[in-house]
Amino acid sequence: MSGIWGNKIKISIFGESHGEAIGAVIDGLPSGIKLDLEAIRFQMKRRAPGRNDFATERTEEDKFEILSGYFNGYTTGTPLSFIIRNNDKKSSDYEYIRDIPRPGHGDYTGRIKYKGYNDYRGGGHFSGRLTASIVFSGSVCRQILEDKGIVITSHIKSIGKIDDDAFDFNYIDKDLISRLNDMELPLIDKEKANMMKEEILSAKADEDSIGGSIECALLGLPAGIGDPYFGSVESKLSHILFSIPGVKGIEFGSGFHITRLKGSQANDVLYLDNGEIKTRTNHNGGIAGGITNGMPVIFRVAIKPTSSIGITQNSVDIGKMEEVEFNITGRHDPCIVPRAVPVVEAAASIAILDFML
Amino acid sequence: MSGIWGNKIKISIFGESHGEAIGAVIDGLPSGIKLDLEAIRFQMKRRAPGRNDFATERTEEDKFEILSGYFNGYTTGTPLSFIIRNNDKKSSDYEYIRDIPRPGHGDYTGRIKYKGYNDYRGGGHFSGRLTASIVFSGSVCRQILEDKGIVITSHIKSIGKIDDDAFDFNYIDKDLISRLNDMELPLIDKEKANMMKEEILSAKADEDSIGGSIECALLGLPAGIGDPYFGSVESKLSHILFSIPGVKGIEFGSGFHITRLKGSQANDVLYLDNGEIKTRTNHNGGIAGGITNGMPVIFRVAIKPTSSIGITQNSVDIGKMEEVEFNITGRHDPCIVPRAVPVVEAAASIAILDFML
Amino acid sequence: MSGIWGNKIKISIFGESHGEAIGAVIDGLPSGIKLDLEAIRFQMKRRAPGRNDFATERTEEDKFEILSGYFNGYTTGTPLSFIIRNNDKKSSDYEYIRDIPRPGHGDYTGRIKYKGYNDYRGGGHFSGRLTASIVFSGSVCRQILEDKGIVITSHIKSIGKIDDDAFDFNYIDKDLISRLNDMELPLIDKEKANMMKEEILSAKADEDSIGGSIECALLGLPAGIGDPYFGSVESKLSHILFSIPGVKGIEFGSGFHITRLKGSQANDVLYLDNGEIKTRTNHNGGIAGGITNGMPVIFRVAIKPTSSIGITQNSVDIGKMEEVEFNITGRHDPCIVPRAVPVVEAAASIAILDFML
Amino acid sequence: MSGIWGNKIKISIFGESHGEAIGAVIDGLPSGIKLDLEAIRFQMKRRAPGRNDFATERTEEDKFEILSGYFNGYTTGTPLSFIIRNNDKKSSDYEYIRDIPRPGHGDYTGRIKYKGYNDYRGGGHFSGRLTASIVFSGSVCRQILEDKGIVITSHIKSIGKIDDDAFDFNYIDKDLISRLNDMELPLIDKEKANMMKEEILSAKADEDSIGGSIECALLGLPAGIGDPYFGSVESKLSHILFSIPGVKGIEFGSGFHITRLKGSQANDVLYLDNGEIKTRTNHNGGIAGGITNGMPVIFRVAIKPTSSIGITQNSVDIGKMEEVEFNITGRHDPCIVPRAVPVVEAAASIAILDFML
Repeated sequence: MSGIWGNKIKISIFGESHGEAIGAVIDGLPSGIKLDLEAIRFQMKRRAPGRNDFATERTEEDKFEILSGYFNGYTTGTPLSFIIRNNDKKSSDYEYIRDIPRPGHGDYTGRIKYKGYNDYRGGGHFSGRLTASIVFSGSVCRQILEDKGIVITSHIKSIGKIDDDAFDFNYIDKDLISRLNDMELPLIDKEKANMMKEEILSAKADEDSIGGSIECALLGLPAGIGDPYFGSVESKLSHILFSIPGVKGIEFGSGFHITRLKGSQANDVLYLDNGEIKTRTNHNGGIAGGITNGMPVIFRVAIKPTSSIGITQNSVDIGKMEEVEFNITGRHDPCIVPRAVPVVEAAASIAILDFML
Repeated sequence: MSGIWGNKIKISIFGESHGEAIGAVIDGLPSGIKLDLEAIRFQMKRRAPGRNDFATERTEEDKFEILSGYFNGYTTGTPLSFIIRNNDKKSSDYEYIRDIPRPGHGDYTGRIKYKGYNDYRGGGHFSGRLTASIVFSGSVCRQILEDKGIVITSHIKSIGKIDDDAFDFNYIDKDLISRLNDMELPLIDKEKANMMKEEILSAKADEDSIGGSIECALLGLPAGIGDPYFGSVESKLSHILFSIPGVKGIEFGSGFHITRLKGSQANDVLYLDNGEIKTRTNHNGGIAGGITNGMPVIFRVAIKPTSSIGITQNSVDIGKMEEVEFNITGRHDPCIVPRAVPVVEAAASIAILDFML
Repeated sequence: MSGIWGNKIKISIFGESHGEAIGAVIDGLPSGIKLDLEAIRFQMKRRAPGRNDFATERTEEDKFEILSGYFNGYTTGTPLSFIIRNNDKKSSDYEYIRDIPRPGHGDYTGRIKYKGYNDYRGGGHFSGRLTASIVFSGSVCRQILEDKGIVITSHIKSIGKIDDDAFDFNYIDKDLISRLNDMELPLIDKEKANMMKEEILSAKADEDSIGGSIECALLGLPAGIGDPYFGSVESKLSHILFSIPGVKGIEFGSGFHITRLKGSQANDVLYLDNGEIKTRTNHNGGIAGGITNGMPVIFRVAIKPTSSIGITQNSVDIGKMEEVEFNITGRHDPCIVPRAVPVVEAAASIAILDFML
Repeated sequence: MSGIWGNKIKISIFGESHGEAIGAVIDGLPSGIKLDLEAIRFQMKRRAPGRNDFATERTEEDKFEILSGYFNGYTTGTPLSFIIRNNDKKSSDYEYIRDIPRPGHGDYTGRIKYKGYNDYRGGGHFSGRLTASIVFSGSVCRQILEDKGIVITSHIKSIGKIDDDAFDFNYIDKDLISRLNDMELPLIDKEKANMMKEEILSAKADEDSIGGSIECALLGLPAGIGDPYFGSVESKLSHILFSIPGVKGIEFGSGFHITRLKGSQANDVLYLDNGEIKTRTNHNGGIAGGITNGMPVIFRVAIKPTSSIGITQNSVDIGKMEEVEFNITGRHDPCIVPRAVPVVEAAASIAILDFML
């Protein structure tokens, strides 16, 4: 089972890059939520291609049509479904990959799994295009969370060898959040923007690509959200975040760095801040025993370099069972990280709402 | 929902550290599996405390009793259940934490979530002791996987500042696997054993603790296992691995390091090896598009330093709502990483079997 | 959660009677199934309104569009989704029911559940129109079952006071199945057709409606399908069958009549029929201990008279909180039973496929 | 998957009649529920064998031990688990059925499903003894429901050819409920008790058995519980009720009788009763569109005659593949209906609590 996620809300995504449409069904939303369609379109645009010179030049419109579950401006409480038609589909662009799996893509594994019946055009169901459905769904969830005072924000933690500062959990204020929301490359240290752009454009000039990482913060979550063991906040967030194509690592709080610490350093000491219980450090990323402690939930995801690159590559022609050299034609993102930011936020929104209903 | 995991098999764990018993129900196992109880006991012993001077001196026996689903030496196909009685429970040891949440533990979050009704003794349901149920369950799953030619092995990748070598995916052979299985500290580079022990004993001498990481390899998995998106191998493995207390990060293949690479480096090129399709590198950790490609699945988990330390710590007395200094008494692991190795392997076994049934 | 059903396949239905479209996502279908779209259309037509003078005269076209999961004539193995646009929607017809719940409908309960935000037009999400999505989904499942030699057939067991014969489990042969498939009113005893039509037309003449029951047989199911307890064939079939609007009762084998029998009569004695194990009677409807025994699975469902009737009725105007007399305008089925036949078969097909994958 | 049921609470049952123990894990219970163990024991006793001369004379004690999730008299909110040891197990009694499936039992289907590895002693996992775990679990749920003002009551609707009156939904008052709770044979019309006893004792005298039906009412449920389609109250109740061994039919409200009615008769007209919306009739059994309407939810279940009878029966010896005559030895219930009453109530309690959390 691949396309359904959630317990209290269930998202059921579908579609192929070059099929009729992509979309999703969201089951379990409360009734009476006034949807801000403009806010949804804003998130869709953050993910959309063709916005600048370091993203692909394809111009998918990502125009959604809501089919059900929405009446007179409000959610009805019954399954909310939407579709996004695939318009800019030049199938012939991809005919050559029918038998030649592109390295780093799901072409080979999809072919094996589906016994050759999968729609191979543009990666088909494996295409990053399906993340548009996650962004739409997550935007709906985000609106409900925002009504509860929960804010989701993130920045690019790194692109290639260039690192942004990390979030300081005590200083994620409205100004920073608003600034990050509006930046082409959302960064805490604005000075890094040009260096990162250069990193991307240099990869682009080489017809290559470059990876990076995203750091996300969830603010305003009350203590007591999540469950021990299989229902831990880390478990459910990582489950949905690893569903995003290209994600290869996830860490919470100090993550892999915590392994270098002593217990006396890593233990987040509780103290009283005007009668409220807080922790002085946040090495555990706002989660202890799988459950939120009221501090910001902070995590980072590692995103690999775009698999589609212009450089000549080697692979195997599976029809002929012989090694071949080939080139991926068409236009591709030299770095997917900026477009992945709203996807990570959307996935986190879905997971957190699922906990809070 | 916290205690149930899986789709085709479902593991339902239960218990508190100082309650009557811990245990689990495993639903969905095939019938006719001849269980090797000795092999289960071997894995239980790898996790058990009190084996050496860098683990806690408590001597839980971890003696399991199978209650159902097992008849004449074989699984029946109906729910297999087992319990492990809690014998060495000195509840008074923990009475002081009733109102003083220990930093880094689930004491505070559990108290909030369960409104003060949780069994606080020894961490109660949050206790690492519950991983014994995961080890038992995983050992059963592992036997089924081994019959299919799938091997799970792992080593300690780091403890504190000391690093072991990484797995070379082309050279994980029977000798290495057998050696790792038998080592007190399973390491590729045996020379590091003493340095790691020193790291642990030094923390112990300071009444402190130290973290580390574990690298695990799944060998023999056929291509085509897993699903895109929410059913990805990364999603399901991370879900269950983050259920293990103390895990704060997970990465597959080159993980966070892949973010520093170019696409031309990170793309695992396919080639023909005696008519079999393989990849020359394994930066994607044997998984593309969420689905196995036939190469070894390799991942690393970050484990934080044991939260229980002897050093005087600060916290908040929640009854009196005032800050306090306090000491954790009793015996604790200065480093939980060695005991976590069989737990990681067991959790991975459960997840992989769930894919393969 | 209301719109998702299944374990190995999951059907996620959505839509409102007078919204943009209804449809479903079917996740978990095997790849490589050649879909016979004509066979799907045939089932859709059996359910469609306006076919004869005892069904509603509305002429919904029920023209489906497949959006994903289908490529070059075969299922891809990724989520198959489809939509059916709502064309014949005269919303004004239904404006009057906004505040006046129609007796027997979900108007009142939906209003309470969704706090007044549900789409009330034509029953909205509660409309029998959504069974078109079940019929489409079931028709896909049925094709897979037929490839495995499993046949689903049914007849109208009763309409009002007129009863058809019951299935004789030993004599459900190809001729009967083919005949039932083609009949306007599928009946074992053809002589009853006119009496049933009269029963329907008499209700219609009175601007009233009439109920009935359907008997369904699943042939060719091997022994060993299903599970004890919560995974019993009866449990899963009844779960999905009670999802069909209007169903108020279900019985397997001799059903309620078995309560009048002695054990010596009700026990289906096993015997050898040319080396094959069969039972001489089939009071248990092909299921023992929740699991199929290789005999035909036979069950009956009770369907209440259509709630929409032309006769003046009483209800409560919830806006004004006063009792009112009112009339349902528009065209309605005097008897829904004939159109429910393909829905029952479709629902059973979904449930059985879920067991067999 | 057979042993796990529920969404918001999940019950995971396990055990075999002649294994070590039966039991269950209940995951998802709220914390802070003060358990009335005496009330649980009362329900266990209602189900227990050996209470009178029309039940089996075996005297299982059904003494439960709570292992987890219960601390200082209250639920902790973590998985509550319990076991009931099997003491009175004379395995040799059942050795003869290893190869001879008893008609009406799950012996044959279990053998096929589990490929001969199932524990065949006393029906093993298929034994009615496992309903003790359902009664325990349901009794816990019932206590939570009672705190919300929801009352579950039922009576024997029929045994063999003797019928009790049906519930009059307007007259199920405290007196009746309390009386039914205390009666050996809970009946509305007390006069029928002797006739029913005779029916049972006559079957017993013949070494035969007799079936019957149970009518259950759920009082105090607010309007708005349940979901349309796959989450309907009918769907979920029927799913769990058909998990009870021996149940072959279920009907809500007027059930199969509603098929004989006109819409003008079957539609439950809404009216105002002191400002509260009620319906004048209750043909729909308190459920419309799958959702409760605030009227009593009333349903009936058909229970087949006990399969184990003393009379000589025919079957097939599967080892030798030849037809045989054989006798079931040991003590058995001539009528299981009285002992099924608390099981039906428990199953309904579980289902309703799952809706209400």
